[in-house]
Amino acid sequence: MKGLDPVEIDVCVSEVGPRDGLQSIDRILDLETKKRWIEAEAAAGVSEIEVGSFVSYKRLPQMADTAQLVAFARNLPGLRVAVLVPNARGATAAIAAGAHKISIPVSASETHSLNNVNRTHAQMLDEVRHIRGLVNAVEERTRPYFEAGIATAFGCTMEGQVPEETVVRLAEELLAAGAEEVGLSDTTGYADPKMIRDRIRAVHRAVGHDKLTGVHLHNTRGLGLANALAALDEGITTLDASLGGLGGCPFAPGASGNIVTEDLVFMLEAMGYRTGIDLDRLLTVRDIVKRGLPDEPIYGFVGDAGLPLGWSETRRADNTA
Amino acid sequence: MKGLDPVEIDVCVSEVGPRDGLQSIDRILDLETKKRWIEAEAAAGVSEIEVGSFVSYKRLPQMADTAQLVAFARNLPGLRVAVLVPNARGATAAIAAGAHKISIPVSASETHSLNNVNRTHAQMLDEVRHIRGLVNAVEERTRPYFEAGIATAFGCTMEGQVPEETVVRLAEELLAAGAEEVGLSDTTGYADPKMIRDRIRAVHRAVGHDKLTGVHLHNTRGLGLANALAALDEGITTLDASLGGLGGCPFAPGASGNIVTEDLVFMLEAMGYRTGIDLDRLLTVRDIVKRGLPDEPIYGFVGDAGLPLGWSETRRADNTA
Repeated sequence: MKGLDPVEIDVCVSEVGPRDGLQSIDRILDLETKKRWIEAEAAAGVSEIEVGSFVSYKRLPQMADTAQLVAFARNLPGLRVAVLVPNARGATAAIAAGAHKISIPVSASETHSLNNVNRTHAQMLDEVRHIRGLVNAVEERTRPYFEAGIATAFGCTMEGQVPEETVVRLAEELLAAGAEEVGLSDTTGYADPKMIRDRIRAVHRAVGHDKLTGVHLHNTRGLGLANALAALDEGITTLDASLGGLGGCPFAPGASGNIVTEDLVFMLEAMGYRTGIDLDRLLTVRDIVKRGLPDEPIYGFVGDAGLPLGWSETRRADNTA
Repeated sequence: MKGLDPVEIDVCVSEVGPRDGLQSIDRILDLETKKRWIEAEAAAGVSEIEVGSFVSYKRLPQMADTAQLVAFARNLPGLRVAVLVPNARGATAAIAAGAHKISIPVSASETHSLNNVNRTHAQMLDEVRHIRGLVNAVEERTRPYFEAGIATAFGCTMEGQVPEETVVRLAEELLAAGAEEVGLSDTTGYADPKMIRDRIRAVHRAVGHDKLTGVHLHNTRGLGLANALAALDEGITTLDASLGGLGGCPFAPGASGNIVTEDLVFMLEAMGYRTGIDLDRLLTVRDIVKRGLPDEPIYGFVGDAGLPLGWSETRRADNTA
């Protein structure tokens, strides 16, 4: 996805903590703290943030302030404001709020889909077609980007293995139904680097490279960054991550832990990928989340170990050269 | 290194917990528990274990029973018994005990070398030559394999960046001085996947692929398995790891945490690499270490999250097919 980047970057690190991180946490983080968090990350150079989801607030009261967050985040310079929607009703709210990017998760495992949103694949494809219509009705200048994220794309805690063919077919169907792009999500932390490579290649072969540019990985079994590396090797340019590794999927038992934004940015920048993010500054944002959620574990190896000796000086020298 | 594998494997996971893991822990693990740990890992299919080091026991009392552990482990079927030695005196003891493999760490950062063992590069090369002589004096049938591990090969907490040329030159010098092989160690957790690839390639170009087949990685900044993946892509076939992620380097402040054996085996087996290790069985070994070290944190994502649904059944089916 192109359009809003003010600086040239190689890889877009998409912060999903305010959505995926918070949705699995009982304690409601107050609106003002969420705003400070989002503002601070944007100021550190994060160019895309999923600020919330337009879901049933009875089911996920944590997300009740999503419209307010979209309105706030839209005013932050250079930030692409993403939201998650489970259905057309959510998409209507997302469009009304003015989100730049709308993602609908569609689970490759139909069992997971039924458990999660009580919808079959056919019903989800209907939702996608419906949303396409809603998006098309928006005037082009402010029309949001519309993506479908294929959840449980690497395995499911309910079904076990999810066949590659299922993922490829679903990708084709979602694009045909009107999604501009698909993403692959390791909702359950079942992926390994070979599976990542194989499935990205299979989807790329089927629908083209530009229709799959992002993946959403969890670190459930410690392979998150190895999987991210495998995805980068296949040309993926958007990686979701959560500050402090907050969160997971509340509807997939035992499947917790997004990859850690700080650790991912460290890996990318160390390898020479430009993320546009000031890592020293990003690390200070952890304090906002820690203060707001004093009882939640905040993960992250770089946060604990600190940056390598000379890192910040070298970066600054590089950036002024 | 070839010779002792009873089963055909693609990647040798070398367990270094009893040495690298324990050396950074104050509490002395008793000899009987160490034996049970080593025996249980060997029974799970681990084909190489670094059981201890022949160092000054005043400095590292945890290692005082290394000779007894070598004697014990030599009787375990199919196990290659490795030890670390800091100098020729240690090598003499290792040879007397009957170790199958002797590794001497030589730090690419001379500052680290001076702080760690009070030796310059020139002095360490003298030790290597001396050890080569000692090894040659052993009759061929029982002669141990002699490797030099290049410590701080990816950066140093004292010097910061360590130039690639320093590592390549040291590799050449260590081989010329009589090491059969060199390994690269990320003692400080400063490596990233690009650096891993670049340095392995540079050393391979300089000395040949068969003179560098193993790496020793830490997970200090969360990149351990991503770095392992990068190393595998470059043809590395031996990866050190520590059960429960125990340990680190007591002489490099802030640099803790070997990559976790269980998580590494999970990644390898999931990708289709044969390790010869029964992961279900390996996971049960964690209890031995936990009971023996009740106050130490035991890491590992797979240990916490469990194996994917259907994993064990699929493995068993594959193995009997």
